Amino acid sequence: MKTSIATVCLSGTLADKLRACAAAGFDGIEIFEPDLVAAPESPSELRASAERLGLSIDLYQPMRDVEGVDEPAFLEVLRRAEAKFALMRELGVETVLCCSNVGTATIDDDDVSASQLRRLGDLAARYRVRIAYEALAWGRFVDDYRRAWRIVQLADHPAVGVCIDSFHILSRGHDPAAIEQIPGEKIFFLQLADAPTLSMDVLSWSRHHRLFPGEGSFDLVDLMTHVVRAGYTGPWSLEVFNDTFRQTDAKRTAVHARRSLRHLEDAVARRLGDDAPGGLALLTDTTPPVEIDFVEIKAEDASAVEALLAQAGFTSRGRHRTKPVTLWTSGRARVVLNEQHARGLAPHIAAIGVAVQDAEALTRRADELATPRAYRRTYAAEQPLDAAVAPDGTELYWADATAGEPAWVGEFEHGASAVSGAVEGVDHVSLTLPWQVIEESVLFYRSVLGLRVTGTTDVPGPQGLMRSRVMSSADRAVRLPLNVAPPMTVERGHAVGLAQHVAFACGDVRALAAAAAARGLEFLRMPDNYYDDLAARFDLSPERVQELRSLRLAYDRDDDAEYLHCYTRTVGEVFLEFVERRGGYDGFGAGAAPVRLAAQGAMTASAGSVRS
Amino acid sequence: MKTSIATVCLSGTLADKLRACAAAGFDGIEIFEPDLVAAPESPSELRASAERLGLSIDLYQPMRDVEGVDEPAFLEVLRRAEAKFALMRELGVETVLCCSNVGTATIDDDDVSASQLRRLGDLAARYRVRIAYEALAWGRFVDDYRRAWRIVQLADHPAVGVCIDSFHILSRGHDPAAIEQIPGEKIFFLQLADAPTLSMDVLSWSRHHRLFPGEGSFDLVDLMTHVVRAGYTGPWSLEVFNDTFRQTDAKRTAVHARRSLRHLEDAVARRLGDDAPGGLALLTDTTPPVEIDFVEIKAEDASAVEALLAQAGFTSRGRHRTKPVTLWTSGRARVVLNEQHARGLAPHIAAIGVAVQDAEALTRRADELATPRAYRRTYAAEQPLDAAVAPDGTELYWADATAGEPAWVGEFEHGASAVSGAVEGVDHVSLTLPWQVIEESVLFYRSVLGLRVTGTTDVPGPQGLMRSRVMSSADRAVRLPLNVAPPMTVERGHAVGLAQHVAFACGDVRALAAAAAARGLEFLRMPDNYYDDLAARFDLSPERVQELRSLRLAYDRDDDAEYLHCYTRTVGEVFLEFVERRGGYDGFGAGAAPVRLAAQGAMTASAGSVRS
Repeated sequence: MKTSIATVCLSGTLADKLRACAAAGFDGIEIFEPDLVAAPESPSELRASAERLGLSIDLYQPMRDVEGVDEPAFLEVLRRAEAKFALMRELGVETVLCCSNVGTATIDDDDVSASQLRRLGDLAARYRVRIAYEALAWGRFVDDYRRAWRIVQLADHPAVGVCIDSFHILSRGHDPAAIEQIPGEKIFFLQLADAPTLSMDVLSWSRHHRLFPGEGSFDLVDLMTHVVRAGYTGPWSLEVFNDTFRQTDAKRTAVHARRSLRHLEDAVARRLGDDAPGGLALLTDTTPPVEIDFVEIKAEDASAVEALLAQAGFTSRGRHRTKPVTLWTSGRARVVLNEQHARGLAPHIAAIGVAVQDAEALTRRADELATPRAYRRTYAAEQPLDAAVAPDGTELYWADATAGEPAWVGEFEHGASAVSGAVEGVDHVSLTLPWQVIEESVLFYRSVLGLRVTGTTDVPGPQGLMRSRVMSSADRAVRLPLNVAPPMTVERGHAVGLAQHVAFACGDVRALAAAAAARGLEFLRMPDNYYDDLAARFDLSPERVQELRSLRLAYDRDDDAEYLHCYTRTVGEVFLEFVERRGGYDGFGAGAAPVRLAAQGAMTASAGSVRS
Repeated sequence: MKTSIATVCLSGTLADKLRACAAAGFDGIEIFEPDLVAAPESPSELRASAERLGLSIDLYQPMRDVEGVDEPAFLEVLRRAEAKFALMRELGVETVLCCSNVGTATIDDDDVSASQLRRLGDLAARYRVRIAYEALAWGRFVDDYRRAWRIVQLADHPAVGVCIDSFHILSRGHDPAAIEQIPGEKIFFLQLADAPTLSMDVLSWSRHHRLFPGEGSFDLVDLMTHVVRAGYTGPWSLEVFNDTFRQTDAKRTAVHARRSLRHLEDAVARRLGDDAPGGLALLTDTTPPVEIDFVEIKAEDASAVEALLAQAGFTSRGRHRTKPVTLWTSGRARVVLNEQHARGLAPHIAAIGVAVQDAEALTRRADELATPRAYRRTYAAEQPLDAAVAPDGTELYWADATAGEPAWVGEFEHGASAVSGAVEGVDHVSLTLPWQVIEESVLFYRSVLGLRVTGTTDVPGPQGLMRSRVMSSADRAVRLPLNVAPPMTVERGHAVGLAQHVAFACGDVRALAAAAAARGLEFLRMPDNYYDDLAARFDLSPERVQELRSLRLAYDRDDDAEYLHCYTRTVGEVFLEFVERRGGYDGFGAGAAPVRLAAQGAMTASAGSVRS
């Protein structure tokens, strides 16, 4: 598979973009005309730079408003086109994208459009370039790829073909199956973009909210099976207009973009099965994680977290034999407290470990997806764990699943033996991300770990609205709610003042809450108004409400499924939650979240953050 | 006019919000239920706090899904309602907002809804509260205020009336004229919000993008004339769900919100003319500014700007008699370079002066709008200028217009006499704002100065997309493009690295460019690709293009109107532009802006910002 990316996807100067695309391993680029116009380099200089970087220039784009016009307007089109065709020769690019007319179209007639494309094709042929005609979703008359293909058939010119763009097809809900009726060699180009489901005007949606494949809601795997079956062999090219990617570091975005195509290629090859052409590569096969192996909380001084864990009935399993790291366990929940290289850091979630069926396979897959590796100094006879760095900086470790305790637990010394506590495992780990990395994070957890977006919510808090996307494994053994922090709370790429948390699963959270309170754990106090509202909302008996209130438990119900949970106070940038799910409850108590945010705000308003 | 505001408009805790509303001079508040539920204070404590702060609690909101349901579901509604009515008594609030059913409605029948509202009214009456029934724009069956009013008529209960909400009426394009057919005493409440024109699903539009009156596109003046004519005498209450206001300081947002109502009240009173009821107050009448009086650039060391001005043919008019401030003029363009209290500051636009017909009247109007005043130390015999601080921190001065030079020019000594230069005046001042203050800025310039939004554009640059809103006086004597910086470029509320600029109007910019270049001014170089594209786009002769290229001029054309302009390099955070408008050209050369941003990025990539 040959890969390509439009320069409009990335931030920076055209020279920056070329370097970033090459470094990320793209084979080619589409040059977005405004990027060229703003560049100080001449076309021949850009051609030479691309050549040196090993990038082909696959497309020049866009030429607008070329057909469906009256004769005087068309003569003006030809004049303009000739200047651009000459430029393309200098750039060494063979294909130009011509969009269906939006601004100047006056004639709604396939024959007129076809005859104008044919004349444009004659001119293009003289410059040895070719025209990929694309139906824009908001084209004045031509807004459907099937009509664009009819016009190209009528034009019947070797230099005139179609460009297939996933956004323009799927945003309109058009069936991509008819792509298979276009001979592959007449599909001159392919542009891919994903997008979230949004009901807004399609132009704004297209210009601001496109995403890389795998980050949105489009079924690009289905579309690509049709493109492949049509016999298309050109580049798979990304054209993603997105306000965020326009701002973020081009090198990083390019790697992220390249990963999206690698993941798509794998999914398409699997969907096609034996029909997959030879050029499509599979990723190493893996299965989603079996459970959370451990959560690591890092801090210069983790003693406040230790105190909470002890009060919650965790067992101290001792200290690591070579590092200032301690382990606390209860049931299958394992919390690592790491004070190494943590000067000035307040407690925060630094790493998550997951248990998988085949750790070696996951390592290969992560490499194939160009995932940045986490480095951790290990010493002889220590268990080497494979790890990656997630887009928000959290480290992700993986190891083979075991029935008992994993081998690395043996590296901890002088602790007590495991006893069964009220906590049975990790229910979920909730991360707070700056808004810049949410899309990249969704793709990361989806492509590397095989998690899926299983829910989205907006949680209003005193500092703004927090948008939450839940990534889970199909069996819910691993749940990672990703909370997007309001922009005002982000400083230097860090979300400040919005705590992350680890939620532990309990069989009986009331017993845990009572026992922990007896050991001195002061749970976050939910206001009386909250309990009065619970009574009104759910018709709970006064006794039941009184029990919840006295144990400081939050409550939610969804049909017959129930959720009981309570929160510790925030320590640094992290707090703990204890949850009991009844009757298959699948949410996270969204009703309590704004109340919790307000209560935490009241408790930590003057504390600030010491994370550097 | 009695004013009110929903607590959902503001950030922070409920206690923060109450204090902010009182400080901004609101008469009352609507309590948004989730704010109450999350508050640690009891309802009676909140009631006492509001009383002490001089705020009435005008509305409790919302109760959802109360009508159009079957009998078992309605019994559940009554149970839930009774708990809330009891709470309302404790809070001391008389009116509850009941929205038309979205989630549970199964019966599309006005009689059923009316009979259920009547029974709810009976219950409400027992608690001495009343129900304001509102048609949500996305109600399952009831989504039009006229239908809500029919149902209330059928319910025929003294405790049941309607709530009029501008968003739900105007977002659907419903004609507000029928409001006049509702007796004023049956309009139990009025909620006001503006909004930008967006084509998106109305629920998302409503939840995230509402604005305060005067910041969006809704004709709220028209709507309010109907409400007033209906005889409504209750509070004018703001209910604005907005992702930005949820994050920004509540005190500041409350002042801004209060200003929006003051401005609306004035506009409604003027529209009603002699029909205006006694309670509506007018703002002091003013006319839009006549011209830009001066632009002040502030810096620890302004010498680099001085050099540019000298090269552009400005005259040095000397030094201020008491301050380290110099004045440069050309024609009616006056630039003040201020080195006072500027330690560590790079050159930036610190203040704009405008000439007005009646400065004293504008001062009164600014006070009536609770505009923050700028303070500047003045000494005896100096011209006192009135001034306000715009939302982005730029100071805005005003003084009476004069035919000749304004009196304050006389405070500058030892300079040359005015000679006529090629620059004739200030064409526009372009400010770069952090995204948090754009709405507030639009309202500020609109309500205080009487400017209007006369254009909006998106300008893509290497650091992201810059959204631009142009504020102008009707005669275009004053033009202020406000550019919203991409969030990634905002640090501590300041947009960093995106320069602001002053554009000077010239009769012959080619002559100016040639003369300035001869004096050593090195204009920003536009790339050759830009000129090649100009030739292709506008069919300019090679000679014409060569002239533009050699003078480093940018060019735009709109029908027969033309725009020629050139830029200096960026000095600190500011650069200068020289523009010539021909044939009534009314834009800003949007095509050149991304090219300019790229060229500036290349020149200043390593310079950074020293503004503190």
